[in-house]
Amino acid sequence: MRRPQLQADHRDGCHYGLKTRLATEKDEEVVVRTFGSLGYKIIVHRNLTKTEMTRELYKVSEVDHSENTSFVCVILSHGNKEGICATDGTVELKNLTYNLKGDNCVTLLGKPKLFFLQACRGEKLDVGVVFPKPKRCEMKAGSAAPMRRRKPPPPKKIPLESDFFYAYATTPGYYAWRNNDRGSFFIQSLCEILPKYRDLELMQIMTKINRKVAYDFESSNRIQKYNENKAMPCFTSMLTKEFYFPK
Amino acid sequence: MRRPQLQADHRDGCHYGLKTRLATEKDEEVVVRTFGSLGYKIIVHRNLTKTEMTRELYKVSEVDHSENTSFVCVILSHGNKEGICATDGTVELKNLTYNLKGDNCVTLLGKPKLFFLQACRGEKLDVGVVFPKPKRCEMKAGSAAPMRRRKPPPPKKIPLESDFFYAYATTPGYYAWRNNDRGSFFIQSLCEILPKYRDLELMQIMTKINRKVAYDFESSNRIQKYNENKAMPCFTSMLTKEFYFPK
Repeated sequence: MRRPQLQADHRDGCHYGLKTRLATEKDEEVVVRTFGSLGYKIIVHRNLTKTEMTRELYKVSEVDHSENTSFVCVILSHGNKEGICATDGTVELKNLTYNLKGDNCVTLLGKPKLFFLQACRGEKLDVGVVFPKPKRCEMKAGSAAPMRRRKPPPPKKIPLESDFFYAYATTPGYYAWRNNDRGSFFIQSLCEILPKYRDLELMQIMTKINRKVAYDFESSNRIQKYNENKAMPCFTSMLTKEFYFPK
Repeated sequence: MRRPQLQADHRDGCHYGLKTRLATEKDEEVVVRTFGSLGYKIIVHRNLTKTEMTRELYKVSEVDHSENTSFVCVILSHGNKEGICATDGTVELKNLTYNLKGDNCVTLLGKPKLFFLQACRGEKLDVGVVFPKPKRCEMKAGSAAPMRRRKPPPPKKIPLESDFFYAYATTPGYYAWRNNDRGSFFIQSLCEILPKYRDLELMQIMTKINRKVAYDFESSNRIQKYNENKAMPCFTSMLTKEFYFPK
């Protein structure tokens, strides 16, 4: 039986030809299905240059989103410390999100802009650590207390940076892993957990994805250095309200 | 009536003398009270050098935390793009957290390590954007659905980077603001919201803090450039379980 190989989604610099990201079509497939079933209108772009990537996000900012309630962008690519690989070089994430910030896209103002990023963020390897005993700590699995509604005073201004959310396949500096047959562990976990727990708040869903990837994943590779490594996804939130995916 | 001035917690480089962070004792006071009332044992350090800061975190890693359920570190300082200011220079956050990672601190393994950081992260100013209408989007204020318990398979290893949580006063590259009379908006909001909603899950609490700072805060300064700026806190989670503060 062929042992499935794991590749890191990393290219140093990206400028000198990119390795084919095997099984990325599996990721694309589940992403399209998952977000499609959540009611999102799907647009797919493949193998874009730096300029094309930036332009596509600019085009998003030109659309009238008055009737839309949120925006989701999933990027499947190689990456490095500086950012995400286009076909001709690296793009910094902030250059992609720039046009959606503040009044650059008024019809998305105050609405969640979610980014899910399957790409390396450096070359570090997380060799993991043996967990001595799966002891339950102070964290409870019980339901959250109901929230009280509290009407905020009408705001004069909100920060340009507000209402962005970034979910990364890995922590800064580290490799992100992809199975050459099945796709990336992060995207596959996202698209498994999300439909199952779509009624939960986004942070609860993401914490489950963190757990799944952290506990269930371990790299498998013929090269010892790349074998039995762990991956820790992380998410960063500037959201100002709880977020539930549309029913 | 004296108009309270807001200072940014920024020092370019930090090496050539640091401005006194007026009213930081107000922040210290609420932090000690808030986390003390949550049952945390409090240790306060003031005006540490780079080496002393790193050493104090190292000393934490040497303690036996078997009976502890989590670790919290609150840092009130100047800061810049590179990290947090000690009295003799800048320390990168990763150098502070290093000793608590993975098997560097076995008795905190799998337990939440929370960092709350009141410090600038650059010199950018968020001038904000006028919110056209406070329209409710797809995000609901209702209670989250109850979570089902699901026992994970006993893990072989967990990532070195797991179970860290970072709450920042501001987004990367931006100023963090502090009122010269009342303390910093982020820390004061944290210590106001936390006791009020201590029964909620950490992410829900943090989203409320994001909202409070984003909507209620606006800088007030005699210098036009520093006046009427906004601030957007952000939090990054590598937690693998929901977190509730101890009762």
